[in-house]
Amino acid sequence: MEEDLIKSLCGIVGEENVKSDIVDRYCYSMDASLYSSIPDVVVFPQTTDHVSEIMKFANTNGIPVTPRGAATGLCGGAVPLKGGIVIDLSKMNKILEIDLDNFCVRVEPGVIQNELNQVLNKRGFFFPPTPGSKKMCTIGGMISTNAGGMTAVKYGVTRNFVLGLKVVLASGEVLELGGKTLKRSLGLDLLQLFVGTEGTLGIITEALLRIIPLPEETAVIVAPFKDVYEATKTVNSVLSRTVPAAIEIMDRGIIKAVNAYIKELKLPEVEAILYFEVDGTREEVQRQIEIIVETCKKHKSLNVQWTADPEKKLMLWQGREAAGGAIMNLDRRLVRVYEAEDVCVPISKIPDMVKRFQEISKKYGIPVGLYGHAGDGNIHSGVLIDVRNPEEWRKLKNLTREVYETAMSLGGNISAEHGIGALRAEWMRRIHGEGLKYIKKIKEAFDPKGILNPGKLGM
Amino acid sequence: MEEDLIKSLCGIVGEENVKSDIVDRYCYSMDASLYSSIPDVVVFPQTTDHVSEIMKFANTNGIPVTPRGAATGLCGGAVPLKGGIVIDLSKMNKILEIDLDNFCVRVEPGVIQNELNQVLNKRGFFFPPTPGSKKMCTIGGMISTNAGGMTAVKYGVTRNFVLGLKVVLASGEVLELGGKTLKRSLGLDLLQLFVGTEGTLGIITEALLRIIPLPEETAVIVAPFKDVYEATKTVNSVLSRTVPAAIEIMDRGIIKAVNAYIKELKLPEVEAILYFEVDGTREEVQRQIEIIVETCKKHKSLNVQWTADPEKKLMLWQGREAAGGAIMNLDRRLVRVYEAEDVCVPISKIPDMVKRFQEISKKYGIPVGLYGHAGDGNIHSGVLIDVRNPEEWRKLKNLTREVYETAMSLGGNISAEHGIGALRAEWMRRIHGEGLKYIKKIKEAFDPKGILNPGKLGM
Repeated sequence: MEEDLIKSLCGIVGEENVKSDIVDRYCYSMDASLYSSIPDVVVFPQTTDHVSEIMKFANTNGIPVTPRGAATGLCGGAVPLKGGIVIDLSKMNKILEIDLDNFCVRVEPGVIQNELNQVLNKRGFFFPPTPGSKKMCTIGGMISTNAGGMTAVKYGVTRNFVLGLKVVLASGEVLELGGKTLKRSLGLDLLQLFVGTEGTLGIITEALLRIIPLPEETAVIVAPFKDVYEATKTVNSVLSRTVPAAIEIMDRGIIKAVNAYIKELKLPEVEAILYFEVDGTREEVQRQIEIIVETCKKHKSLNVQWTADPEKKLMLWQGREAAGGAIMNLDRRLVRVYEAEDVCVPISKIPDMVKRFQEISKKYGIPVGLYGHAGDGNIHSGVLIDVRNPEEWRKLKNLTREVYETAMSLGGNISAEHGIGALRAEWMRRIHGEGLKYIKKIKEAFDPKGILNPGKLGM
Repeated sequence: MEEDLIKSLCGIVGEENVKSDIVDRYCYSMDASLYSSIPDVVVFPQTTDHVSEIMKFANTNGIPVTPRGAATGLCGGAVPLKGGIVIDLSKMNKILEIDLDNFCVRVEPGVIQNELNQVLNKRGFFFPPTPGSKKMCTIGGMISTNAGGMTAVKYGVTRNFVLGLKVVLASGEVLELGGKTLKRSLGLDLLQLFVGTEGTLGIITEALLRIIPLPEETAVIVAPFKDVYEATKTVNSVLSRTVPAAIEIMDRGIIKAVNAYIKELKLPEVEAILYFEVDGTREEVQRQIEIIVETCKKHKSLNVQWTADPEKKLMLWQGREAAGGAIMNLDRRLVRVYEAEDVCVPISKIPDMVKRFQEISKKYGIPVGLYGHAGDGNIHSGVLIDVRNPEEWRKLKNLTREVYETAMSLGGNISAEHGIGALRAEWMRRIHGEGLKYIKKIKEAFDPKGILNPGKLGM
């Protein structure tokens, strides 16, 4: 069987685009999560036709297929849990069209976010959704997880920027969805249906994305607070008057970790620091700075700093940028694990979520640093455990459960932008309730044999 | 059977909320389209439980159910084509919660757009999507058609503002979807699935909507052009530098009709007039006016006028506001019919669409005036025929076909914001291609007996 499989795939994409030796397969057994599972074969299609032919073959033979972009996902979405074929889309990485008359670009799924923006920036445009992994992550992966990032406060998430998709279904059929218009009312919207489904309904082989003109100017404002509640109230007060591009938060744990990581930064070791980014015309940016500085001071921020100078901006952002890397400094004997790392709550509930998270961390003796996107209630966590100790894993599981229960009881959810993958698959029933029955029926309509990314999203 | 039906419904909602005499039923046989069909009974639920009980009863007995808001729809979406039950949701019209801490409101589906905004405006907030029918249309209807309106250029369509939904399915089951967060990545998004499905998948009984702070100031800019191409190029040039809240256009036909309708307006009888609305902080508005006036002049606009004064603003808007009412003045012997009234094209294709539409109008001898949302390529038309002449209806059908073919060949679509309903049902296959098969499977998963709004959207 396995030889037949490889021969057939070589027939579709050519020998040079099929990898089947154990070293290659091992490399493709992982993504950025802790999951791993070795595929039977890795294939690199270069066209929609290639993907369609691969799917026809896989569907006829009931072979599992796992699509893969840059595999930066934290939930095991790109891990081939049931073996079979990994379709690596990284060679489909061309920008096919830049249409400045209609404010959109057409790209293949393997295009990297930052590389797209480098090209667009030169033309005075940008594609706003910006995950932390922007230098590696692909557009296909971003659409598959409805990726968010810092600027979702003002610009929205990836879903809001997807104008069109070419999708290959389990059967090999190709759907062309959407187009270069911002509006449509054409009944059930299949385009929107595919966003965020992590390759369980089809494989994206082309995307039409909305782009927007670069703002004239951007500025950064940094404000430390003695009290998490005051910091969060500031977020609400600011949003009542103006919409910044980004509002980020770091808690005491992360601040300490960052100070240990970059000695010369010397962040004030307070309960919370807020970072704001504003953009727009020069006049607009000035006005937003005024509003935000005034609001921060009203909420007892200790020492508000701001700048529109490009170099100074980078310096001010440095603290927030270092958060991810600094987390290991919470305790150097422990390892960061990605669990309970992406909860989202209504913004008024951020202080409750932060406080409860810190209490749960204390209860289980697991160090946790909190940071993230305060402007949309999305809190990321750095959770550290001794990965060689099974007892720590058990504690982690309980901590995660309590954190998720807390987020949901506050009216929030358990993943804002990272997705479900394998990591949160067992939570699908809790999240969707009776709706899960219908989600499964839709899955069955598109993929009756269940070959598309099996083992993910509770499918 | 009919008596049993009425008795059962009275048992659920009380006698006073069931109407079955012929006069009432006749009133509920229509919406704002030309379709009509008399229902067996009209029922006014007041709670989600009511709707759920009605659906259980209808599903058990295979009775068609047509949900209805204010029935302002132009495509027959609220007309009970197969008889059965009309569920009028106009008594479910309470604003249930205003949560300014989390920038959202929870409403029943019968709440009227403008009434919601009157309440919100007093608190310094607004709900941006604004259809022309804002003084009558309901939130439930807006969600069901993914309504757009003038301000979609800057703020987006209804879909972008729906945070949560309570939906009653054909089975009577109730799904609670979404929540008070702006971000989620939880797999297949049922919330998004229901938007724009015109009551064919379920009945919305509650909605959680995103709201935003009122801008400090708004202003209007009006610019006449000798040439439609120059007007459209202006739209693109402006959008490359700044995003106004609205960009509207009227063609020569509509301008003439408006001048005949309001004698003292004396609009310049040119090929096209553009209307811009800008909003934001005072500084931002001033800057946007500068950019737009400068850009219009560069594109040879004849006499650009602008104002931020509330009274003068109303005066300047008067021309555009009168467009709908003025259309009859194109030819007073004829009647306006709603066909080919909502096409959408990529904005660079507006001049081609306008020119082709005018040519098709001439070819069939059917007077047409064009206006609409230039900022998102959505062109509305006023089409006039002698409704007593069957030959005119045949011509209209051909005109419509040619207009739709043109819109699609330009990369656009046949409805931006009005929907499909019965009017465009036969176009579903052309619009969705192979995708229609999957849309029908999803419909079947949610409504196996096909009782929800039958005869619409090709279902």
